Amino acid sequence: MNVSHATVHPVEEFPTTDAVGGGGGGGGGGDGGGGGNPPRLRMKDVQGMPGTPGGLALRACQFLFAVAAVCVMATTSDFPSVTAFSYLVAAAGLQSFWSLSLAIIDIYALLVRRSLQNYRIVSLFTIGDGITSTLTFAAACASAGITVLIDNDLDICAQNHCIEFETATGMAFICWFTSLPSFLLNFWSLASR
Amino acid sequence: MNVSHATVHPVEEFPTTDAVGGGGGGGGGGDGGGGGNPPRLRMKDVQGMPGTPGGLALRACQFLFAVAAVCVMATTSDFPSVTAFSYLVAAAGLQSFWSLSLAIIDIYALLVRRSLQNYRIVSLFTIGDGITSTLTFAAACASAGITVLIDNDLDICAQNHCIEFETATGMAFICWFTSLPSFLLNFWSLASR
Repeated sequence: MNVSHATVHPVEEFPTTDAVGGGGGGGGGGDGGGGGNPPRLRMKDVQGMPGTPGGLALRACQFLFAVAAVCVMATTSDFPSVTAFSYLVAAAGLQSFWSLSLAIIDIYALLVRRSLQNYRIVSLFTIGDGITSTLTFAAACASAGITVLIDNDLDICAQNHCIEFETATGMAFICWFTSLPSFLLNFWSLASR
Repeated sequence: MNVSHATVHPVEEFPTTDAVGGGGGGGGGGDGGGGGNPPRLRMKDVQGMPGTPGGLALRACQFLFAVAAVCVMATTSDFPSVTAFSYLVAAAGLQSFWSLSLAIIDIYALLVRRSLQNYRIVSLFTIGDGITSTLTFAAACASAGITVLIDNDLDICAQNHCIEFETATGMAFICWFTSLPSFLLNFWSLASR
């Protein structure tokens, strides 16, 4: 008897999932139409996952903040002289490219009401999110380290564009904060199937 | 053996635990022996999870590299003048404390052959691992940004302890690399129940 439980996935999750699906209204409808078969016991279509309005909102935020970080940093003339700032531009550029691509996929999935809860697709999204969000976070931390060094430790803001550097770093951090839920939700959805 | 699980909530978990324990006999020796009998659908007792020899090895590595980062950084006289280096010492100190605590728990679990696959325990470990590894990674990235600035961009290694800074940063990165599997495995195990 215990053995038969082995195929069953978490019972506790469900109430929440169903409640979210019910509250989501239109979003929940897309699920039934697309994934079709099994999804009773899955964390399907929790807001924030690929193919949901919440997921699209997350992607849009990631894209906007990444682009903002690149633009603010690019307005300073001397950012290429510091490796970490150049790296921030590169990482935020990659993040914006990735987020834009996934936003387009989300829009497509929402328009045709197609579920993106396919194992291979979610694996790909998870790996991509993990890599881009780690790179963005690393760039933000490196820039923050140098900004704090310039501003607090050496106090040479007069000769540097501290405001721009700090703003770009902040944008990169916010970008990371919005990409973290995407990664965690995808990873969770991958593990819970 | 079942008595120790009596406080239990999740009904589904236990079947697997019991099955594994049953396979190993009263002593649970088969279980500790290396996961010879594969848990069917759960990632129970995958090497690297809490309460396994692999998990203990990960904790030991985390502890050693975190302590190495603190010690190497502390040998330089001027690290407190840079915020990021002070933060590296703090974060690596916290990581070493956390890893040591969990290593002790792992040793205890291995000695008394007790499973640590309790929902609340795993949640706690996941949150702790997530926080400490993120802090360690942030500190390593900030230090790396400043080290690269000193070494490559400004080329003032003559007046600074570049070797020590770089070594401490490297140790912190290795520490993060060994703490990442702990976090991901715990998170996976949390999601897959």
